[in-house]
Amino acid sequence: MTDFRQKALDYHEFPVPGKYSVELTKPAETAMDLSLAYSPGVAEPVREIAANPNDAYRYTNKGNLIAVISNGTAILGLGDLGPLASKPVMEGKALLFKRFANLDAIDIEVKHRTIDEFVDTVANIADTFGGINLEDIKAPECFEIEKALIERCAVPVFHDDQHGTAIVTAAGMINALEIQGKNIEDAIIVCMGAGAAATACMELLIKCGAMREKIYMLDRKGVIHTRRDDINEYKKMFANNTDKRTLQDVIADADVFVGVSGPDLVTAEDIQLMAEKPVIFACSNPDPEIKPEVAHAARQDLIMGTGRSDYPNQVNNVLCFPFIFRGALDVRASAINDEMKVAAVHALAQLAKEPVLPQVLQAYPEVDSLEFGADYVLPKPMDPRLLPRIAKAVAQAAIDSGVAGIEELPENYMAE
Amino acid sequence: MTDFRQKALDYHEFPVPGKYSVELTKPAETAMDLSLAYSPGVAEPVREIAANPNDAYRYTNKGNLIAVISNGTAILGLGDLGPLASKPVMEGKALLFKRFANLDAIDIEVKHRTIDEFVDTVANIADTFGGINLEDIKAPECFEIEKALIERCAVPVFHDDQHGTAIVTAAGMINALEIQGKNIEDAIIVCMGAGAAATACMELLIKCGAMREKIYMLDRKGVIHTRRDDINEYKKMFANNTDKRTLQDVIADADVFVGVSGPDLVTAEDIQLMAEKPVIFACSNPDPEIKPEVAHAARQDLIMGTGRSDYPNQVNNVLCFPFIFRGALDVRASAINDEMKVAAVHALAQLAKEPVLPQVLQAYPEVDSLEFGADYVLPKPMDPRLLPRIAKAVAQAAIDSGVAGIEELPENYMAE
Repeated sequence: MTDFRQKALDYHEFPVPGKYSVELTKPAETAMDLSLAYSPGVAEPVREIAANPNDAYRYTNKGNLIAVISNGTAILGLGDLGPLASKPVMEGKALLFKRFANLDAIDIEVKHRTIDEFVDTVANIADTFGGINLEDIKAPECFEIEKALIERCAVPVFHDDQHGTAIVTAAGMINALEIQGKNIEDAIIVCMGAGAAATACMELLIKCGAMREKIYMLDRKGVIHTRRDDINEYKKMFANNTDKRTLQDVIADADVFVGVSGPDLVTAEDIQLMAEKPVIFACSNPDPEIKPEVAHAARQDLIMGTGRSDYPNQVNNVLCFPFIFRGALDVRASAINDEMKVAAVHALAQLAKEPVLPQVLQAYPEVDSLEFGADYVLPKPMDPRLLPRIAKAVAQAAIDSGVAGIEELPENYMAE
Repeated sequence: MTDFRQKALDYHEFPVPGKYSVELTKPAETAMDLSLAYSPGVAEPVREIAANPNDAYRYTNKGNLIAVISNGTAILGLGDLGPLASKPVMEGKALLFKRFANLDAIDIEVKHRTIDEFVDTVANIADTFGGINLEDIKAPECFEIEKALIERCAVPVFHDDQHGTAIVTAAGMINALEIQGKNIEDAIIVCMGAGAAATACMELLIKCGAMREKIYMLDRKGVIHTRRDDINEYKKMFANNTDKRTLQDVIADADVFVGVSGPDLVTAEDIQLMAEKPVIFACSNPDPEIKPEVAHAARQDLIMGTGRSDYPNQVNNVLCFPFIFRGALDVRASAINDEMKVAAVHALAQLAKEPVLPQVLQAYPEVDSLEFGADYVLPKPMDPRLLPRIAKAVAQAAIDSGVAGIEELPENYMAE
C-alpha cells in the first residue's frame, strides 16, 4: 500500500468517519430554547410557510442547502461501482461546497431500477434544498435525467460533470485563444470524447461564439459525422457534414483540441498537424490525452491545459460549481440557465487577467509567478476573489434573465 | 402577534435561517488536504466500499447520520399542510438528535403522488444514512409506509410518532401501575384515539404484558368492537368482542386511560367511574383529553401524565428517539425491532427510580423535588443518564436479537 493511499484512507476514517457533521446554528440548551426550536414554537414557521411557500427561505436552511446527488454510475474515472461506493466522493463534494462558498451541502446516494425512478426520487425530495448538484452519472442517461429534473424541480438542477467542466473549459479557452491571437468564431475545434462533459463543453463554447460546423467531435469509432447511423440523439447534435473520418483527418489545421476521453490517445505527430498557435486542453484524468512534456517537446507555440494540479492551467470544476450555486441560491434562483453559465465563464476568464494576490502565490511555492499568459489562463482554486466575482455575476444574470426569486441584489452583495 | 409567536419566528430567522449547518470534520485548507478529501485520494475509500459495503461505516459519515423524513400529512397538531411546510419541524427534530445524542441528522421533505412512490423514494436514498426517522405521516398510510420501508431498507426505519410515543408511554405506565400496586397483566385499559400513536402504544403495552382482550380502543364513532364493519385492518387488530359501545361503558372500572385523541373529550364524571387508583395519560397536545386540575379535583388517588412540559409526568418522545437511534447506529443495526423497543422501555422506566441528579433538579426550578412517585414516573429530558442507559440497553438488545452489524459492545461503551 502506498503512503498516499494509506493517507487517504486515514483521512477518511480518523478521528471520525466521513468528512462533515451537522451542527446547530441556534441555542438548544434550555427548555425555552427547545420550545422555540420544536414544539410548540415550531408551529409558527410551519403556518407561515404553509401560507407562503417562499418563507421556507426565511425560516429554514433551504436557502443555503445543496444536495449532492449521485447514482454512482460514473464515479470519477472508476466507472459504475453503485451508489453506496460513491458516498465518499459526494461527501467530498459537500466539503468543497462548504470550503469554497460556505454552502451547506449534504450527499444523497440513490439506487434505482429505471431512469424514471431516479428522476421521481430526486424530484420528490428537491424542495428540501435550495439547489441540486448532480454528480458522477453516466452518459447518455445523465442528459435525460438532467432535462427531466430541470422540468420538474422548482430549484436549480446542475450536473457538474457537464456544466462545471464546460464553464471552466470555456473560460480557459477564451483566454487561451485571446493569447494566441485567435477568434473563437473562426476556430476549428476538435473534441475527443462524446460523453457528458464533452457535449456540454462544446454546447457552451458555441454559446460563447464557436461555430457548430467548425467542431469535429470524435467517439471511440472516430469522427461523428452526418452519415453515421450508430449514434444517439446527443451525439447527433454534433454530427458534422464532412468526409473526414479519423483524428488525423480532423486535427490537421485545427486550432483547438479538447480531450475529455482517455489517456495517451494523442501523439506528438498528431499535434504537429495542428494549425499554428494551437490550444490543447487534454483533460482526461489522471492521465491526459497527451502528456504536457510530450506536447511541449513537439511544438513550442501551443497553450496547454490539463485536469491535473501539477501542471499549469488546471481545468478544475472547483473554480466554478461552489460559486455558481452561491450566486444562484443568494437570489433564490429557480434554475441555472445559459445566461448564468455564460456569466460565470466571463467572470472566471476575466479574473485570470487580474494581478494574482500574494497569498495565492504563496499557496503555490513551486511556481515563480502567476501572470496572465500561456501558463496562466485560469485563476487558481485558492483565489479568494472567485467567490465574489463569480457569485455576483451569476446572481445578476439570474435576475436579468428572469429566474431569480428576488428583484435586485443587496447593495453590498459580495463587496470585496 | 403574541410575544412567544414572534420569538419563535425570530428564533428560526436570525441570525441565519434554519437551525443547523453542515460543518467540516476534516482539514480542507491546503492543496494536499483537498487531494485527500476529493480527487485523487477519495478513490481509495470508494474502492474499499465497492469491495466491502460495510466499509461505508468506516470511511463515510453513514454511521452517525440520520434522515428525518416527512411528507407533511400530519404536522404536529396542524394536519396536512404539505411537505415544505413541515421543514421547520423536521429541522427541529434534527436539532434534537444532535442536542441529545450527538447524531448528525438532516431533514428531507418528500412530495409524492402515491404511497408506493413515497416508499420508493425513501427506499432509494436509504443507504446514504445509518437510520431513518419517519415523522408526521398520517394514519393509516403511515403503517403501510413503515412496513414497506422496513422490508426494503437495510438500515433501521422508525416512525417516531408511533414508536417513540409508545416507548415513553409504556415506560411511564409500567412505573405508574407499580406505584398504584397494579399488574399490567390485569389492567383494564381504555385507549381513546385509534391513530398511529394509539395503536403503537397498545401494541407495545401488549409486548410489555398487557392483555389484548382487556384493551378497549375508541375512535370518533365509539368503542372499536368485533361487530363493526367500518374499520380498517389496523383498527381491527383492537376490535374487542364486547357489548360496550361508549366511553362511559368502557371507562367504568378501567384501571388505565390513555388518550391520544383530542382536547377535553373526558369529563370529571367519566374518570370518577374508573377503578380505584387509576392511571390517566392524557396526551393530546397542547390540550389534553382532561385537564390535570379537573382530574385531580375529581379524585385524589390517580396518577396522571400529559404531553405537556408544564405538568408532571410529561410523555415526551425526546426521552427516547435520540437514544434508541444512538444505540442502533452504534452497533450498525439493520432494524429497530421489538426487543430493542422493549429494552428502551425498561431502561427508561428504571431510570425514573434512581435519585435525580442535582443539575437536573436545577433545570426545573419550579419543582421542589423529583422523586419516584405519582408526580415522577418518567425521567426528565435534561437527565444526562438517558443517553448511556437507553443507548446501551438498545445496542445490547440489537446484538442479542441478531440485527446488529457488530458482535459485541466495545468494553467501555457508554461508560458513565
